[in-house]
Amino acid sequence: MEATYCALCKHGYAELTMQDIAAESTKSKGTLHYHFEGKQDLLESFLEYILDRFEERTETIPGETPSEKLHEFFDELLTPSDEDSAEEFRTAILEIKAQSPYNEAYRERLSEFDRALRDRTAGFVADGIETGEFRDGIDPDETADFLVTLFHGAQTRAAAVDRSPEHTKQSVHEYIDSTLRADGSSSEEPTVADGEAEAGK
Amino acid sequence: MEATYCALCKHGYAELTMQDIAAESTKSKGTLHYHFEGKQDLLESFLEYILDRFEERTETIPGETPSEKLHEFFDELLTPSDEDSAEEFRTAILEIKAQSPYNEAYRERLSEFDRALRDRTAGFVADGIETGEFRDGIDPDETADFLVTLFHGAQTRAAAVDRSPEHTKQSVHEYIDSTLRADGSSSEEPTVADGEAEAGK
Repeated sequence: MEATYCALCKHGYAELTMQDIAAESTKSKGTLHYHFEGKQDLLESFLEYILDRFEERTETIPGETPSEKLHEFFDELLTPSDEDSAEEFRTAILEIKAQSPYNEAYRERLSEFDRALRDRTAGFVADGIETGEFRDGIDPDETADFLVTLFHGAQTRAAAVDRSPEHTKQSVHEYIDSTLRADGSSSEEPTVADGEAEAGK
Repeated sequence: MEATYCALCKHGYAELTMQDIAAESTKSKGTLHYHFEGKQDLLESFLEYILDRFEERTETIPGETPSEKLHEFFDELLTPSDEDSAEEFRTAILEIKAQSPYNEAYRERLSEFDRALRDRTAGFVADGIETGEFRDGIDPDETADFLVTLFHGAQTRAAAVDRSPEHTKQSVHEYIDSTLRADGSSSEEPTVADGEAEAGK
């Protein structure tokens, strides 16, 4: 799976061959073919592996309140786990997303990942309403859907038009503070996120 | 260009050949090759054509106030011009976006389109602040960036995980009414968008 990651970053999805993956691993191409029917089969397993790794990585989100956890969760989502190959990997995943309508197994894996993101997000939002941190009358599922759409948009724009996801990260923080928080909508107090933006200028 | 549109919807981007495009037009493959070096060259022109058509389509946005125009603009953006081939076309464009890091000409065209979207959006937001319809203290460029990211996310999710852009359309309407409007943030009054959502249930 590590070798698949490296080969995807190096060659992209369209050009990727089993030979490229073998070249990154200690296994021969023959051994790979013994375990996987071909590139698509191997990449299905790779998508499962990414989902598992993501779930491990986000099992315990730091933060004392639901709002802090929601901030942290999107921070984690929009920060690549490996900065060096972030662009290449993002592009490869976008290529796989674009293949999804032609490949049911990809579509299933990607849908599972999308669902996992929505469920986690909706959970934090619901918890925040419960504790009074977020406004009553917010719909956790609608809000989660909105934020997950933003996440996909950030990834797509970063690959397609070179618009850094850092930018979206900032917007998501502001959205949480100004639109979701019970004390946020009419407050003119600078928030933590605003403070960071100022500091980053 | 019409033939390219049809061929893209039928075959997707990856499998598309000059022969496929010729088959949809009254021109021979030879004639196409006389005008375009190859598939990538033709698709560059196609992306320009789409941008032009989009600019024509949105030159006059109905609506009496900036807020109405902003609603209409995103409604237009998230409504396919041809319902029958909407999914196929969306997928083809996503494939082209995923090729963008490998193809400078695509990247330039896509960036131009992204910029056009941001500029139009920022214009409506700035106008709305001017007329007092939108809250002071909103940054038109940041807001435009946020909404354009949502647009990209809606297109990606629709292709990759079969999540209809109709859903995002509703969220964008609510975002405009509750987060941007000067009277929206703490109001419990049902907005037009809420009313439509109720009616659609």
